[in-house]
Amino acid sequence: MDLQAIANDIVSRMESESDRGKVANYIPELAHVDLNKFGIAIAPIEGEVVTAGDADIPFSIQSISKLFALTLALKRVGATLWQRVGREPSGTAFNSIIQLENERGIPRNPFINPGAIVVSDVLLEGRQPDEALEDVLGLCRRLSNDETVYVDDKVAASETLTGDRNRALANFMKAEGNLREPVDRVLEVYFQQCAIAMSCRQLATAGRYLCAAGQPAGGEDSTVTPERARRLNSLMMTCGLYDASGEFAFRIGIPAKSGVGGGVLGIIPGVASVAAWCPGLDRNGNSRLAIEAFEELVRATGWSVFGPLVPPRRSQT
Amino acid sequence: MDLQAIANDIVSRMESESDRGKVANYIPELAHVDLNKFGIAIAPIEGEVVTAGDADIPFSIQSISKLFALTLALKRVGATLWQRVGREPSGTAFNSIIQLENERGIPRNPFINPGAIVVSDVLLEGRQPDEALEDVLGLCRRLSNDETVYVDDKVAASETLTGDRNRALANFMKAEGNLREPVDRVLEVYFQQCAIAMSCRQLATAGRYLCAAGQPAGGEDSTVTPERARRLNSLMMTCGLYDASGEFAFRIGIPAKSGVGGGVLGIIPGVASVAAWCPGLDRNGNSRLAIEAFEELVRATGWSVFGPLVPPRRSQT
Amino acid sequence: MDLQAIANDIVSRMESESDRGKVANYIPELAHVDLNKFGIAIAPIEGEVVTAGDADIPFSIQSISKLFALTLALKRVGATLWQRVGREPSGTAFNSIIQLENERGIPRNPFINPGAIVVSDVLLEGRQPDEALEDVLGLCRRLSNDETVYVDDKVAASETLTGDRNRALANFMKAEGNLREPVDRVLEVYFQQCAIAMSCRQLATAGRYLCAAGQPAGGEDSTVTPERARRLNSLMMTCGLYDASGEFAFRIGIPAKSGVGGGVLGIIPGVASVAAWCPGLDRNGNSRLAIEAFEELVRATGWSVFGPLVPPRRSQT
Amino acid sequence: MDLQAIANDIVSRMESESDRGKVANYIPELAHVDLNKFGIAIAPIEGEVVTAGDADIPFSIQSISKLFALTLALKRVGATLWQRVGREPSGTAFNSIIQLENERGIPRNPFINPGAIVVSDVLLEGRQPDEALEDVLGLCRRLSNDETVYVDDKVAASETLTGDRNRALANFMKAEGNLREPVDRVLEVYFQQCAIAMSCRQLATAGRYLCAAGQPAGGEDSTVTPERARRLNSLMMTCGLYDASGEFAFRIGIPAKSGVGGGVLGIIPGVASVAAWCPGLDRNGNSRLAIEAFEELVRATGWSVFGPLVPPRRSQT
Repeated sequence: MDLQAIANDIVSRMESESDRGKVANYIPELAHVDLNKFGIAIAPIEGEVVTAGDADIPFSIQSISKLFALTLALKRVGATLWQRVGREPSGTAFNSIIQLENERGIPRNPFINPGAIVVSDVLLEGRQPDEALEDVLGLCRRLSNDETVYVDDKVAASETLTGDRNRALANFMKAEGNLREPVDRVLEVYFQQCAIAMSCRQLATAGRYLCAAGQPAGGEDSTVTPERARRLNSLMMTCGLYDASGEFAFRIGIPAKSGVGGGVLGIIPGVASVAAWCPGLDRNGNSRLAIEAFEELVRATGWSVFGPLVPPRRSQT
Repeated sequence: MDLQAIANDIVSRMESESDRGKVANYIPELAHVDLNKFGIAIAPIEGEVVTAGDADIPFSIQSISKLFALTLALKRVGATLWQRVGREPSGTAFNSIIQLENERGIPRNPFINPGAIVVSDVLLEGRQPDEALEDVLGLCRRLSNDETVYVDDKVAASETLTGDRNRALANFMKAEGNLREPVDRVLEVYFQQCAIAMSCRQLATAGRYLCAAGQPAGGEDSTVTPERARRLNSLMMTCGLYDASGEFAFRIGIPAKSGVGGGVLGIIPGVASVAAWCPGLDRNGNSRLAIEAFEELVRATGWSVFGPLVPPRRSQT
Repeated sequence: MDLQAIANDIVSRMESESDRGKVANYIPELAHVDLNKFGIAIAPIEGEVVTAGDADIPFSIQSISKLFALTLALKRVGATLWQRVGREPSGTAFNSIIQLENERGIPRNPFINPGAIVVSDVLLEGRQPDEALEDVLGLCRRLSNDETVYVDDKVAASETLTGDRNRALANFMKAEGNLREPVDRVLEVYFQQCAIAMSCRQLATAGRYLCAAGQPAGGEDSTVTPERARRLNSLMMTCGLYDASGEFAFRIGIPAKSGVGGGVLGIIPGVASVAAWCPGLDRNGNSRLAIEAFEELVRATGWSVFGPLVPPRRSQT
Repeated sequence: MDLQAIANDIVSRMESESDRGKVANYIPELAHVDLNKFGIAIAPIEGEVVTAGDADIPFSIQSISKLFALTLALKRVGATLWQRVGREPSGTAFNSIIQLENERGIPRNPFINPGAIVVSDVLLEGRQPDEALEDVLGLCRRLSNDETVYVDDKVAASETLTGDRNRALANFMKAEGNLREPVDRVLEVYFQQCAIAMSCRQLATAGRYLCAAGQPAGGEDSTVTPERARRLNSLMMTCGLYDASGEFAFRIGIPAKSGVGGGVLGIIPGVASVAAWCPGLDRNGNSRLAIEAFEELVRATGWSVFGPLVPPRRSQT
């Protein structure tokens, strides 16, 4: 399978797409991003990363950071985390507060905003906000093997200014006893973590820990055990694209996590980690073209976890 | 991999389980079933079906029938079905009517009750209820390669007597214009389809069409295209166990569909179809021990779609 | 106070109103009614009924019948009724099923549809549907002192044909154990009771039992005790106009019950009973002009229960 | 009618009540209050205030302050307030956030917490928090004709410490654009206003402006026009006791506003203003015995707005 040809083909198709969605406008700093950008990077578990388009331009990873933060929180507190956050799809928007009231402050899963805020609280507990943030940023740098990954301060400031809804969610959970640290400090971690900037190349490289865990290609990496990798992948499958997770599973069939910066990171277990990026969003807050790119990719490679994978795999090795 | 030894081992573990859940009591006829029964059947895409325990006792497949009915409805009307039913997890109980009111009579997915009732309406359209039922029953017989599969009339009568909640759901959708046939006739199809009785052996055999589609082992079977099989699998993954679908994906990681009769059918794409059965249910309405059995199975075989599948597969071939 | 002049004045103002709302279209038979009709009748606790406009044309009283049915149900079972129906405003539309699911089949009050269906069940218990209906119809005739009050069979048939939403509500309560008689028979009572036709004159006359209870002018009438009259009035105030009850209390300040046939019956305790009718509805399902007529009436008479009533009263006697 | 005898009788009945409810525990400072206290004050529109029991002990008026704040906000911005707050009962708890999300940040009425927070925002706009607070405190002093009315700083501090849920509500409305001033400053006004302490005598005296507006006894007082008094009374009737407003209207039938400090202020239009206090609350957050006291009062006086008022009134003059 010629992954480079597939990636190039995807880029040229995306260039001609006229309906590119809308840039997130509720975080002012994100509203300036160029809708015409598109990048893709494919990191097979072994071998070189394949890229095409704007794959080396850093963008705001936003909610994709929830995956890295969750990885660290599970290391910190293990399965006790699940007493404070559920593992079910929410059936509601990523920032809905209704579910929180109905379920007494326990977020449905760690990928909706309130769930990720609890994760930030876990990372913060007993530390300063910048220590918690350093942890997340450090993991992103180590996994992407690139020390240039950074927090975009303007985006972080922009989120702080417009984060009233997240403040509502956090205060609600505080009232229900599901946050231990002060709301302002928890949100400081959360807003900054969302403002981490990475390129498709960096993201795809970073995602390898989830597709190679327990495989020979995974080497000595101990970021996650194979079992935890499987579980993180399952959470991405059922909850990774907000209230469009079922649709993504249906059309594409690989675990993935999206962010309102326009990035989507997908994991094909045992095969590859893939990142695509285009800043225009659909009405669910997911990148319109990044989703299309994944659909093209699966069509070309057969990389669905629900599909008949054996034949493509053989041709790959 | 010695599947027979694995199956036997699971059966002996389940025998010693004292907390076996509770039999469904809202369908009186199901309340008589023996809590001590447990069966499992594994149907690899090639080779003999492996069974252990009570694998040849027929039980009420209940909501597992929604999978077969959906397969037929997609054959009948194709993707237009999705204008009338969604593809997202619901975040609510299988018989909740709240979501229906909030989303104007469009059920979230075809595996919650209102979604399956729309599917029954699609199967019925322009026909008599017994014709629609024959279709579903015929598919179950053909796929399980066993003409003895039958509708349990006592269970069907029991459901009709106690189906007020389903009548509420159906009338609600009728009011919103999402049912075309008369409510009573649609429910006649629905109640009878749920009363189909199959054994673990029959179910596991029947499930092969979803794991072998497009594979050499799938032969000439044209029940579904490979793409449709992938999509049905994805729906099972995100919505197959009601409001515990996320949990099942997290702990076990294979597409599956459960029924309140205590059965669970799981599909490992390209590998095997597995059915387990024990009538005791947990609070979500899923079989407590059938779920545990799947957990044991995945631990022993590595058959998670989210995991590193390559090593177990090699040892399998 | 010259009530005739006030009534005439209201009629002439309403004639010139161009925005008359929309006729209820979900009951086909009601959709034919002439939007230009408008009538008003004022029945002081003593003396002649004052009328103006189309005050002698019978119209479908629809939900106003819930008041008469409730009066009878309280006679039948007394305060035990309140174990099956609440007494709080619902905060939702008159036919919402969400509240029912959240509160396990107990309707919030007897004036939303599910509450009135429970009342029909109480009236039916142990009887035939036509006996229960005769009770309601008989009360309407006796209170209006007019044996010509009738059930409009065409409207009743029209409701039966299009009553899927009410069937959903009834089946839901049946499933929750809050209906004792068969759903079809309960709805037969409910649909027919809603199809009772009365004129403004008949309605205003009938309403006297609620404003004169316990007063010398009430005479020997024992339809309700003074205490029960007070309580029925309070229910009208907090729940009588569906989800616009608060607004009506705010703008007008008298207990009232509306129906989608365009009628509104208002009770000024100790003073008068008033009925107004115009078939055009606002978005809450209340008659646009009947509400305006009550606003004019209160402006002219000072008949708000929340206002300084003493001066107008003096001038009245 | 001997109001003093009635008041004394109520006090002696309440002394013997063993089930006194529970003191509000979510505001720590309120948890210290003595459950055995009970006071009542009746302020007829003319003549001396009648008191009995602990009628001169100041208590935290809490949500009763919402009535005075609303009176001032309507003076400030008039009917434009109603673009930002509704006038309907909510059908949910006083601090529910679900309704806010469903209705895009517009609270259902000014007496649930989010509605009162919008009112605080209106009072604050363009001013300092202490100016806004002075306004509310000043009105309480003027109406009660007692300059000793004060803000209990300990209670205010206690509310600030435990006000996470209110912070959630405020931030949510900020996110929806329904607060103009910074959340922290709006809540400063809100928390302090709730911490105003008044006795039954002071409260009953203060309430006279709502029962005497437009009456000769109201004199030159221009706090509200007669029309606005009527409207404030109507809001108390439909929304004044949180999610038990319908029940209070049903059992008692007078406009009233309660607070979690255990006070209830009731208005009998044209007749009297009454305050009762006992710190023990029922599960809806209303004073158990204050409600019972109002029930006794209405039984003894006939002072329901829904009842036959004429005979008792005559005997009163």
